Amino acid sequence: MSKSTDELFKNVISHAKEYGFVFPSSEIYDGLSAVYDYGQNGAELKNNIKTYWWKAMVQMHDNIVGIDSAIFMHPKIWKASGHVDGFSDPMIDNKDSKKRYRADQLLEDKIDRYDKDGKTDKAEQLQHDMDDALKNEDLPRLKELIIEHEIACPVSGTRNWTDVRQFNLMFSTQVGAIADESDTIYLRPETAQGIFVNYLNVQKSGRMKIPFGIAQIGKAFRNEVIARQFIIRMREFEQMEMQYFVRPGTQKEWFSQWKEARLKWHLALGTDAAKYRYHEHVKLAHYADAAFDIEFNFPFGFKEVEGIHSRTNFDLSQHEKFSGKKMQYFDPEVDPETGKPYGNYVPYVIETSIGLDRMFLLTMINAFEEEDLSTDEKQDSRTVLHLHPCLAPVKAAIFPLTKKDGLPEKAREIMDRLKLDFNIQYEEKDAIGKRYRRQDAIGTPVCITVDHQTLEDNTVTIRHRDSMAQERVAAADLDKIIGDLVSWRNLLK
Amino acid sequence: MSKSTDELFKNVISHAKEYGFVFPSSEIYDGLSAVYDYGQNGAELKNNIKTYWWKAMVQMHDNIVGIDSAIFMHPKIWKASGHVDGFSDPMIDNKDSKKRYRADQLLEDKIDRYDKDGKTDKAEQLQHDMDDALKNEDLPRLKELIIEHEIACPVSGTRNWTDVRQFNLMFSTQVGAIADESDTIYLRPETAQGIFVNYLNVQKSGRMKIPFGIAQIGKAFRNEVIARQFIIRMREFEQMEMQYFVRPGTQKEWFSQWKEARLKWHLALGTDAAKYRYHEHVKLAHYADAAFDIEFNFPFGFKEVEGIHSRTNFDLSQHEKFSGKKMQYFDPEVDPETGKPYGNYVPYVIETSIGLDRMFLLTMINAFEEEDLSTDEKQDSRTVLHLHPCLAPVKAAIFPLTKKDGLPEKAREIMDRLKLDFNIQYEEKDAIGKRYRRQDAIGTPVCITVDHQTLEDNTVTIRHRDSMAQERVAAADLDKIIGDLVSWRNLLK
Repeated sequence: MSKSTDELFKNVISHAKEYGFVFPSSEIYDGLSAVYDYGQNGAELKNNIKTYWWKAMVQMHDNIVGIDSAIFMHPKIWKASGHVDGFSDPMIDNKDSKKRYRADQLLEDKIDRYDKDGKTDKAEQLQHDMDDALKNEDLPRLKELIIEHEIACPVSGTRNWTDVRQFNLMFSTQVGAIADESDTIYLRPETAQGIFVNYLNVQKSGRMKIPFGIAQIGKAFRNEVIARQFIIRMREFEQMEMQYFVRPGTQKEWFSQWKEARLKWHLALGTDAAKYRYHEHVKLAHYADAAFDIEFNFPFGFKEVEGIHSRTNFDLSQHEKFSGKKMQYFDPEVDPETGKPYGNYVPYVIETSIGLDRMFLLTMINAFEEEDLSTDEKQDSRTVLHLHPCLAPVKAAIFPLTKKDGLPEKAREIMDRLKLDFNIQYEEKDAIGKRYRRQDAIGTPVCITVDHQTLEDNTVTIRHRDSMAQERVAAADLDKIIGDLVSWRNLLK
Repeated sequence: MSKSTDELFKNVISHAKEYGFVFPSSEIYDGLSAVYDYGQNGAELKNNIKTYWWKAMVQMHDNIVGIDSAIFMHPKIWKASGHVDGFSDPMIDNKDSKKRYRADQLLEDKIDRYDKDGKTDKAEQLQHDMDDALKNEDLPRLKELIIEHEIACPVSGTRNWTDVRQFNLMFSTQVGAIADESDTIYLRPETAQGIFVNYLNVQKSGRMKIPFGIAQIGKAFRNEVIARQFIIRMREFEQMEMQYFVRPGTQKEWFSQWKEARLKWHLALGTDAAKYRYHEHVKLAHYADAAFDIEFNFPFGFKEVEGIHSRTNFDLSQHEKFSGKKMQYFDPEVDPETGKPYGNYVPYVIETSIGLDRMFLLTMINAFEEEDLSTDEKQDSRTVLHLHPCLAPVKAAIFPLTKKDGLPEKAREIMDRLKLDFNIQYEEKDAIGKRYRRQDAIGTPVCITVDHQTLEDNTVTIRHRDSMAQERVAAADLDKIIGDLVSWRNLLK
């Protein structure tokens, strides 16, 4: 991360706090690691991103519906999905400091150091050896590499290490109060399984025909050992996932359609296409036959925002096996090759999975600008969030020019009408210029000023965030002007 | 519960499952007790209830903002709030069956039995003794009552009981992977504390002036020992809470304002006012100086849907004490009595807290009707959900009269336009009458039929859910007709 991008990231984080977008959780108790709260503007922005996703995925597709399954699920589900046995990180403890580390993270830090010291050969060799060990899940080999490369504990400074062990990332809790019978259940580490176990309930009650999709937005939890980079990796986070159920053999075609459709969704917000790229997974998860990430160029480099995965019929088949219930769909369509219906099968699944918190951060970073407005006469600047109007927390701010002469009353009268349809803010304190800047900082698309002329002819000044251009319009036209600006049609058409 | 109301409740539950509103969680694994999933229509209805609350509370009030704080919070918060020490139920174990029960529940079952057997005196005496014991948190007395009234374990049939002990209702989990340093944290049992610990962050970054409110919608978790009555008491549930921060001494006035405003919110949906009542808390929680419930007449009797609580400055003062951080607000307003600013104080808080899942159930029950449509000629009936159009999961359904002659294409053309603004369903299977009934069952306000005349003059038949009246309208007018019908203005004005 270069100094300027590092600074940009820091500025976005402090802006997010100063303007009520993101607060560290439990801040008065000195915080809770890797957990964040969304403030008054953050909650609105996050809700708007959710709405955009839900409308694009559910409302716009008559064969996709949304559900809302619980965080608590039967523990056998995570046995079936492979999470109980396989969802873990390789950990190693230093016996002197008693500190625990991710083994691969220690090795990656060493690779970085080799690189910085110009020892490119050594860096490459270690990277190669580590990748091999991780691929083969060879824990003793990971420890060997730590010993061979003389990696010491940053706290104790010693190389007195335990063996490498797997550490499960799921949070667990006890449910029920019956003595000796309380059960261990998990906080879901992904929302997808809530869709899989409900897929037949939805298909039958909704009379869905393949291909069809089930979408969901919800919290998921992972006990990340090293949680960092602000809201990029949190222990509690939110996912927007859609599982698309298709006929076996057609998954490649649907995979490539969704890969394109999802990137389009991102680009519709007006983001520079050069900031996005696809990243193909070379090493596939055990359940997948194809996987691409959509990556965004964050200040700390390209990072995954969304994954599109061809999950085969792995999950549904596992649930069939572990639950003993049939997970088959009956397909009445006639196969042109055989002349008979396709009949019963376990569908294949294409998944699109986006991290809502990452999408939020992406949106903040992409919108953030410290704009130099200096002229020959004077230095000036502003901080502005160029948010798409559909995503802006506040749609319009309304200002009486002064606090007297009935201007506040007139401004409030207009607000009381507009607020039936839009999230409106009223501000009467400080000079108009200062008020503009405060709205720029939270991304409000337009500011409306009520002045003495308004009392005479019912016109107001409307000032646009990005261009800073001002125009005089009839107050009666405001509903339509703002309505057109923030209409979801702008994003969905 | 009389037979007919009992049947009504059962019918609503089975309707909820059959039509994709609520599924038992993890059903293919034989369910998870007291946890439910919202299906494709339930998720939409639930989202619409959330939207109505958010718009009414946040969008309509320029001094109320919404936040979204995390479920995970610093464990000290629950020490300060009193939940670690006080949020518990009195439990008793039977030594033979090893089963655990809520002591007060055993006593209440006994009271019911006395009542049924006509022993009203005994019932009243036990009720009185139990209330006394609960009020004084006298656990030995609770046990005495169980012994005195010869209550036996329903499983073992014996009266071989342990002492009564307190059992905490919070779910706990371990966070972090550092050896010997992992911390116990709780899943929040209420969303309110997320507002309290953030109140100064919001006030400062949002330049809020007292009185102001902070609203939040989010999950909360309680390890209920006896979870029952469908989604009335769940272990994982969702709350919609608003904390209103006021000047000490003004809490009574604000309390009565919010008490009225919240009932209005319920009644705006068109529900019969006779189905609601206020219930005043006689025994107040340790933090409250006034409390009313808004109760709804469920098939099993009046039950709390929402609580309005005057929480004093208890929570903020506790956080000041436990965090060591100042929780005071500086009030610049001039006190007319002293002629000086009110200055620094810890605000008082009025809370409005509504259970989203209960509100959902209320809405379903209130909307549900098995309507007799029999005429002299034939018997007929339909099941219809008279949902407010703003809350309906699907806003309009569009049907081609037949599957040929270009009618499906024409219907889809109209749908593709309407779906930019509304959640629309397309159906071409079965006779029109059958399709109407399916839409009635999920509460769709209007059905639109495209027939041969549509191809000629671009008119369609629109059929209204409640009246079943049909009229011929121009297809071009549909946007406005549906738009007016489902406009949030209908509920907010």
